[in-house]
Amino acid sequence: MFNKKLSVIVWNEFEHEREEPEIRAIYPEGIHATIAAALREIPALGHGTLPLEIGTATLDQPEHGLSEARLATCDVLVWWGHKAHSKVDDEIVERVQRRVLEGMGLIVLHSGHFSKIFRRLMGTNCSLKWREAAEKERVWVVERSHPIAAGLGEYFELPNEEMYGERFDIPQPDQTIFISWFEGGEVFRSGCCWERGHGRIFYFRPGHEAYPTYHNRDVQQVLANAVQWAAPRVNFVDHCPQSAPLETLSDNGNAFAKVGIRQSTGDIA
Amino acid sequence: MFNKKLSVIVWNEFEHEREEPEIRAIYPEGIHATIAAALREIPALGHGTLPLEIGTATLDQPEHGLSEARLATCDVLVWWGHKAHSKVDDEIVERVQRRVLEGMGLIVLHSGHFSKIFRRLMGTNCSLKWREAAEKERVWVVERSHPIAAGLGEYFELPNEEMYGERFDIPQPDQTIFISWFEGGEVFRSGCCWERGHGRIFYFRPGHEAYPTYHNRDVQQVLANAVQWAAPRVNFVDHCPQSAPLETLSDNGNAFAKVGIRQSTGDIA
Amino acid sequence: MFNKKLSVIVWNEFEHEREEPEIRAIYPEGIHATIAAALREIPALGHGTLPLEIGTATLDQPEHGLSEARLATCDVLVWWGHKAHSKVDDEIVERVQRRVLEGMGLIVLHSGHFSKIFRRLMGTNCSLKWREAAEKERVWVVERSHPIAAGLGEYFELPNEEMYGERFDIPQPDQTIFISWFEGGEVFRSGCCWERGHGRIFYFRPGHEAYPTYHNRDVQQVLANAVQWAAPRVNFVDHCPQSAPLETLSDNGNAFAKVGIRQSTGDIA
Amino acid sequence: MFNKKLSVIVWNEFEHEREEPEIRAIYPEGIHATIAAALREIPALGHGTLPLEIGTATLDQPEHGLSEARLATCDVLVWWGHKAHSKVDDEIVERVQRRVLEGMGLIVLHSGHFSKIFRRLMGTNCSLKWREAAEKERVWVVERSHPIAAGLGEYFELPNEEMYGERFDIPQPDQTIFISWFEGGEVFRSGCCWERGHGRIFYFRPGHEAYPTYHNRDVQQVLANAVQWAAPRVNFVDHCPQSAPLETLSDNGNAFAKVGIRQSTGDIA
Repeated sequence: MFNKKLSVIVWNEFEHEREEPEIRAIYPEGIHATIAAALREIPALGHGTLPLEIGTATLDQPEHGLSEARLATCDVLVWWGHKAHSKVDDEIVERVQRRVLEGMGLIVLHSGHFSKIFRRLMGTNCSLKWREAAEKERVWVVERSHPIAAGLGEYFELPNEEMYGERFDIPQPDQTIFISWFEGGEVFRSGCCWERGHGRIFYFRPGHEAYPTYHNRDVQQVLANAVQWAAPRVNFVDHCPQSAPLETLSDNGNAFAKVGIRQSTGDIA
Repeated sequence: MFNKKLSVIVWNEFEHEREEPEIRAIYPEGIHATIAAALREIPALGHGTLPLEIGTATLDQPEHGLSEARLATCDVLVWWGHKAHSKVDDEIVERVQRRVLEGMGLIVLHSGHFSKIFRRLMGTNCSLKWREAAEKERVWVVERSHPIAAGLGEYFELPNEEMYGERFDIPQPDQTIFISWFEGGEVFRSGCCWERGHGRIFYFRPGHEAYPTYHNRDVQQVLANAVQWAAPRVNFVDHCPQSAPLETLSDNGNAFAKVGIRQSTGDIA
Repeated sequence: MFNKKLSVIVWNEFEHEREEPEIRAIYPEGIHATIAAALREIPALGHGTLPLEIGTATLDQPEHGLSEARLATCDVLVWWGHKAHSKVDDEIVERVQRRVLEGMGLIVLHSGHFSKIFRRLMGTNCSLKWREAAEKERVWVVERSHPIAAGLGEYFELPNEEMYGERFDIPQPDQTIFISWFEGGEVFRSGCCWERGHGRIFYFRPGHEAYPTYHNRDVQQVLANAVQWAAPRVNFVDHCPQSAPLETLSDNGNAFAKVGIRQSTGDIA
Repeated sequence: MFNKKLSVIVWNEFEHEREEPEIRAIYPEGIHATIAAALREIPALGHGTLPLEIGTATLDQPEHGLSEARLATCDVLVWWGHKAHSKVDDEIVERVQRRVLEGMGLIVLHSGHFSKIFRRLMGTNCSLKWREAAEKERVWVVERSHPIAAGLGEYFELPNEEMYGERFDIPQPDQTIFISWFEGGEVFRSGCCWERGHGRIFYFRPGHEAYPTYHNRDVQQVLANAVQWAAPRVNFVDHCPQSAPLETLSDNGNAFAKVGIRQSTGDIA
């Protein structure tokens, strides 16, 4: 199963950076380029780290850069989107979902809470409170032994971030690694893990386009760790098989036995 | 918030019973009618039981019997479907999902594991192993203190059921109340609870159309208890509000402050 | 199983109030008396509310007021302790633990995080950060549909509280209902639920003896709701029974069969 | 943090093998020796595998072979006990618990469900049903993507095992990896994971002394995988620190401010 390298795609809708000079000043090549560069530079901490093969993809590419062939060999997909969620093709969303359920890792960033793929995998609205006021965020590490927190202290700070506040409408996370404190008075579950199918999903809150969050060393460390954590452990295609008994069945000797053994066809269990 | 009565809708695709005489012999008026009758007769055990107002709905009705107006006052929806999942309109599925996230309870039965509404709320494939061989199922009660298990013993048996076997592709349940043993050698998490948004979801495995499972007294007790458990606690419409700070923000005095306070419109957090 | 009334004991070590005039000024009859009075006055919100029969118990009483007979009929025990945790007799702690595992509810308040009973039920250190500086705490309601949050808004505030900060060394809660924001910059999981054995446990953070927290209406509402939520659903004495097979065992026909059927005695599974 | 090697101790009470010839015939050097040999031979599957340094310890050794110095450098402790749980010194149990909370891994086998250390970390009775009848156990893999299941198929079988049946009185596991089917009609959650403090705990059901379970290749694979999974990620000594504010506190200007800033001493939060 395990590749010698992890194949990572950093996906970005890549609209803010092209349309707004203030944003472009922070991310001249796009948020995806900054994240990809950070992943190339920053080693994940913890044992078992695999080398990365890093590519990027953007909304404007054919199939949003996520063809069947490319996704088939992708181990971890990083997702940044904000204003163009509705432009993402439903077929591509289904394709990504299928790959996650087969084992691919998915890291959803910041405003990606409202992306089609995240909402589809969560099954909830994924709504929250928000405020764009360049305020201070202090990210507390609640589970310091989690691999995604490797190398971090008790907390790290971002001097200017958009606020996201509870209630965050998500299924209860399998682990809640970070909880943020905001200067304006709110709290938020900022680092959440789930498993869906055979794949791992990590949501990481920080990363508003108007602030240089992805240039922050602690944020980059989280991303480097998260990519390793989300690495596939298996790659199983879904099926819903009819199965022969493993033990001899008794003759139940009643009217239902005959009804019961009619043949079904297809995957209707 | 709390009604004096719980408004329950038992939904059934109602095709097997009309098309197959053997099935009609077991459920002459349809599975929904049998379940509705049981809910009228069997009191839930445990304290805090509310009286029920029980209706039914079927696939062939306009909007599948689930109009906006009707769902708006529905407290708990019970769902049985099997061969006609694909005939359920996507718009109705979204409507039901929205109501669950607002607080409505949902009870998904047996082959409903592959219904659109269940897969959408889970975010996973919801696939499993299966075999239709009229074999014995023994349902073990793993959490005897859970309200859904009130009045049951350590286990109950069904002499003839379809087998469902692991791996069941679901998000880890909040509680796993029942685990089934099958004569043919498999096991299955047969009673699983989740919360999504503000609503409660219960999946209950038994109930193949070819066997008289919904005439079984233990099964009926589970359904009566589950309807009470799934009763709404709140009814909140989803929103994603921009929020004013609750504390005075410092003047962060840097280049980002100005960028940060640009106005966003709409629900793009 | 279900009593018509819930029998509640509010337990308090009752030392601060007797030794320190400033504390006595806030709680003249003791914290337990204030809590008991509030439980008498404030109705729980939500359906299924049972009337309460409320008593108190303190450390200085024989068996700390928690005799076998009294605990045997107790439905929900509320626990406040701080400076005298080590004075609580280990035998009483075991007795309380046994009753929780049988089905009794337990509500642990504030500095009770370090009580013997809480640490024993959690299995962890239950340590945290703290600061006694009369600072503002804003308690965010993360799960508004949970019965313990019934009647609360999106948050409530306490103008003066001791700070508790993460990392709180607890097993991951079954539900995290409240997360606190502190003026000094920390966050804390302030309302946590667990099930252990057949009993329910709720930890509620606010309640430092030097501030009038238990006179606060929102705090009182939480306590009133929590007592109802923690009500026993069953009352099962623990056992570890040898069990006869429910199905005919094959003659496995090998050397181990004979070894395998030697008799064990007692509860060594 | 990360050693180049994982230091593993396989602990065994080592009484059955010395007292009963039938047991000695299966495990001539003791269960611990068989497990240690298997761990030396069988590589864990999955990436990031660390080499092992394997030792053993038994009840009859001074401090049960678990001195402060030895435990201080132990990464993963494997525990087998059955008839002599009560002979394990409480001080050693506390020492092991402390090390788990600091980050050490713990793997509890079979009848170790009733060991002092497991019950202390769980906080529950850890009781179950049982029957010693050399019957067939089929262990279903419910989470095939979990590292502990690496290399296994959909299930594996043990022709002769003691039966353990639900209800198993444990806190809900963080993950349930295996569920067993027993010939005699019961089911059991046979592979369960928890995190407590900074350490990982895995309970694995199979392994009755009267059957050659630890000679089984699938069982050995599970143990090899579990040791790697349980490897420490951090090593933190517990504390409960008084913390200075990270933000300027307002002068709350009321009577409690002065009370609030009195000095506390020691670890009473």
